[in-house]
Amino acid sequence: MRDDVARGVDHGDGTRGLRMRLGEVVSYHSSRHVSAEELAFRCARTINRARQVGYRTLMANQAEWLGRFWRRSDVRVSGHPELQQAVRWNLFQLIQASARAETQGIPAKGLTGSGYGGHYFWDTEVYALPFLTYTSPQFSRNALRFRYLMLPQATERARELSHDGVLFPWRTINGHESSAYYAAGTAQYHIDADIAYALMKYVYATGDSEFLLSEGVDILVGTARFFMSLGFFDPTGEKFQIHSVTGPDEYTTVVNNNFYTNVMARYNLRAAADVALQMRRERPEAFQELSDRSGLSIDELDLWDRAAKAMYIPFDEGMQIHPQDDQFLNRQLWNLDDPAVGPKRPLLLHYHPLTIYRYQVLKQADVVLGLFLQGDDVPAEIKKRDYTYYDRLTTGDSSLSAVVQSIVAAELGFRETAMDFFLRGLFLDLENLHGNSADGVHIASCGGVWSALVFGFGGFRDDYGHFSIDPRLPEGWESLEFNVTLQGYQVRVTVEEDAVELQIVDGGEGLVGPVTVMGKEVVVGTRPVRVEGETTLVADEQGLVEAGIATDVVQDIVTVDK
Amino acid sequence: MRDDVARGVDHGDGTRGLRMRLGEVVSYHSSRHVSAEELAFRCARTINRARQVGYRTLMANQAEWLGRFWRRSDVRVSGHPELQQAVRWNLFQLIQASARAETQGIPAKGLTGSGYGGHYFWDTEVYALPFLTYTSPQFSRNALRFRYLMLPQATERARELSHDGVLFPWRTINGHESSAYYAAGTAQYHIDADIAYALMKYVYATGDSEFLLSEGVDILVGTARFFMSLGFFDPTGEKFQIHSVTGPDEYTTVVNNNFYTNVMARYNLRAAADVALQMRRERPEAFQELSDRSGLSIDELDLWDRAAKAMYIPFDEGMQIHPQDDQFLNRQLWNLDDPAVGPKRPLLLHYHPLTIYRYQVLKQADVVLGLFLQGDDVPAEIKKRDYTYYDRLTTGDSSLSAVVQSIVAAELGFRETAMDFFLRGLFLDLENLHGNSADGVHIASCGGVWSALVFGFGGFRDDYGHFSIDPRLPEGWESLEFNVTLQGYQVRVTVEEDAVELQIVDGGEGLVGPVTVMGKEVVVGTRPVRVEGETTLVADEQGLVEAGIATDVVQDIVTVDK
Repeated sequence: MRDDVARGVDHGDGTRGLRMRLGEVVSYHSSRHVSAEELAFRCARTINRARQVGYRTLMANQAEWLGRFWRRSDVRVSGHPELQQAVRWNLFQLIQASARAETQGIPAKGLTGSGYGGHYFWDTEVYALPFLTYTSPQFSRNALRFRYLMLPQATERARELSHDGVLFPWRTINGHESSAYYAAGTAQYHIDADIAYALMKYVYATGDSEFLLSEGVDILVGTARFFMSLGFFDPTGEKFQIHSVTGPDEYTTVVNNNFYTNVMARYNLRAAADVALQMRRERPEAFQELSDRSGLSIDELDLWDRAAKAMYIPFDEGMQIHPQDDQFLNRQLWNLDDPAVGPKRPLLLHYHPLTIYRYQVLKQADVVLGLFLQGDDVPAEIKKRDYTYYDRLTTGDSSLSAVVQSIVAAELGFRETAMDFFLRGLFLDLENLHGNSADGVHIASCGGVWSALVFGFGGFRDDYGHFSIDPRLPEGWESLEFNVTLQGYQVRVTVEEDAVELQIVDGGEGLVGPVTVMGKEVVVGTRPVRVEGETTLVADEQGLVEAGIATDVVQDIVTVDK
Repeated sequence: MRDDVARGVDHGDGTRGLRMRLGEVVSYHSSRHVSAEELAFRCARTINRARQVGYRTLMANQAEWLGRFWRRSDVRVSGHPELQQAVRWNLFQLIQASARAETQGIPAKGLTGSGYGGHYFWDTEVYALPFLTYTSPQFSRNALRFRYLMLPQATERARELSHDGVLFPWRTINGHESSAYYAAGTAQYHIDADIAYALMKYVYATGDSEFLLSEGVDILVGTARFFMSLGFFDPTGEKFQIHSVTGPDEYTTVVNNNFYTNVMARYNLRAAADVALQMRRERPEAFQELSDRSGLSIDELDLWDRAAKAMYIPFDEGMQIHPQDDQFLNRQLWNLDDPAVGPKRPLLLHYHPLTIYRYQVLKQADVVLGLFLQGDDVPAEIKKRDYTYYDRLTTGDSSLSAVVQSIVAAELGFRETAMDFFLRGLFLDLENLHGNSADGVHIASCGGVWSALVFGFGGFRDDYGHFSIDPRLPEGWESLEFNVTLQGYQVRVTVEEDAVELQIVDGGEGLVGPVTVMGKEVVVGTRPVRVEGETTLVADEQGLVEAGIATDVVQDIVTVDK
């Protein structure tokens, strides 16, 4: 339909050089509960309203909306316009996918393609939500409500698997499990903890206790109960194990004590117990309601706490690394340097799962993702060994891998590696690096690009509500500027080579903090606060090599038959 | 079509008490390579011939054929006509399923029902072939040729899984893998060893070196190569491991170092190396042909021998039992005594695989089957502990379990248990104990009934061509008589309470042996040879209890949520 602006143009008859603008107003309505006739009527009404409002006003409204988005969300990389452009392309994909999702969730491809059939995965919580939580928290809340509204189906699913609590579907479009392959689907129980984790990060960032107490806590209780019935204490009661699970890495499935799953389940159990106990102390009437509707008892909270404390975290004393699972280090190593394997990527399209599963070979970061999300108590030396050991085994066949590897490499000072992985994530779809961008944009990786900038190079962290910044500015970047909305205040963080500056730029008068910046505690207000210090990412490629040598001697690399 | 006999009857008009016989001649031809017209023509020709031959002659021929079958195959249990009848019913099913199978294999249900869609499994080799090998060896050879003719598809399948050698399909009707579920299908690689094992048992029983050298050896070479490429030496070279496999028990899948798989693969590698080396010594021209068509080298034989010697057999020093696999004993125990679980059988129809796989719970004998087929070097005390440990975890949801448990219980002196499991196998279809006999007769269990009689109560064994008999006559059985055809001679074995008598009853003049009978070596000829001794199955239920107590203390039994 041509709009008034188009009609305002003096149409020619194909004359060359004539400037012409055609406009089209399109209306889209969708609902699961309304008839097609009603939807058609709503579409017509919307179009009529748009015509009345007019093109210029619509465009101005849109520009204003996007202006607000960029003001609160932009990340600025000075001196690198090509990177800047690519960064903004990624952030734009994120807001396109989430702004109008309301409580329908954010699918893996947003609305950009038919890949994954429009289904939602854990990607939303672990990769897309951090960006939303810290820049557009209301959209993050919408996405979390999407999970909250799914609790009835998740309860039913847990029963189907003979478990207590709730099990969120590995892939879904309507709340029911849609994965046809349990080994790389249902067994990825970590999705429960991923959702609980994203919920808590949202709560710490926003202080939105209203959502937590009225709805979020039901997610915490259900997921904690699930992990209690999935795992078990060994006879001594000192070790809580979780068996037959699949971690984020789908090239190893149905294993015992996956590092990632166990650290995330520990977080889940702790958070559920802490929130419930805090409710009991500070909001006894809300706790009573929770107890009435869920049958929650104090004994149960004690049990969660005991399980979290007893959670078994696999660690190999000899190699001084965290095995991905109990049996991982006993497997053969896949020689990814074999030139015959190069063209056979992703492996999953060229090898039978039984072949892939027999080897130490990763589709994507697994222990390394665990170290990023829940590695605060792991010494840097161990992290370096972990990172290096898994680095050479990781194919990156999943688009979820590079951005995580970049973050942890930046934290550990593996400068070139951090930048390499960052660029792989940044240009994933712009350069169609995985050859499948036609199926849609990898929304999770777009979120990972923001995370790599803010958590990786920016060094921003939230440790149970305590925020810290410890930047690792890439070589050749003059500055890095990003925004995080904390407790309703938009804090602008500017990392320069020798200082970090923080300032509340939106949200009114107020204070945020203390925030630990390069080891120094500061309180942030509407006037800039500046902390001097070396922000540059220190190159420690030697450390990478040394950690590599240390792990190299332990096992031989084998070559898989072609 | 009514035949001449029917026509010979003076037809009445429905008068009561009139004796009438209706006969029908039916002809069935089948071929994959011949047109429907040609098949119809063949059917007509067969019917015409049958008419010419006439009903009485046809029946007499059939009776003669069956007479010969019973003379060489019958097992007599004196004093128990109801058991005798049931035994013969089972043996009759076996010959119905196999006599005219020729080289088309023996499907799981024979021709009695549509269960399993007419597919063939490992059941044939492990459960049905012993009966055929020792009573109708030509039918056993036919069944083994069925596998030989499948080598091209099995080679292709191994390639699909990035392996050397051959991988026989877990279920098939045309040589191609037809299992849609690799975890309880393709991963049961032990089928390769099962076939190699059945082949060698056939060769030892018959001395059919012609078949071995011309065709059988290709099965040995292909399967040995497969296991070499599936397993791997650890860096020290002293331990050969096999990962990501499923044993006979389908309630635990895709595990490392399954006891059954490893002992059977060891047998497979040994047999292949031994046969090839013996060929090289004694039939150099045949070895040269084999080498030419398969590229087999002496180095490869050495490697098989090394792998067999280094084969890792899991053993738990603390509990003094063989774990079913590396991780088995770390799993939780399923409380099968829980009354709520009783009605939920078989478990696989009531619980998600991920739930079942997390527990120590067995669908069928696994370690115990390994102990029967390859347990010669395991001390009786360990076997008792193994048997007892797995006994309480075994649901018997598979019809393949009871007969094996009966054999090993008999060997270990668990008298009541042995009889109980024997009866479960004996009446499986006659009393529809699994509720699915309408889908067809469990042919493998029929074979297992023979095995329980001959290997279990009869105590017959073949250890690399050395035959032995060590009977355990059940209480209240006066005698047990069975026949085994060895080296072309039909040997009748009669077990009485205080003696075993052996005699060649068919095959002409000759000698078989030495055969070790209750520890004494005898040579069997056409005149009876009698060995005195206590043949009764000694009751050692106390041993069962003691072994149970010993293993009981180790772990708590848990109850699965309903």
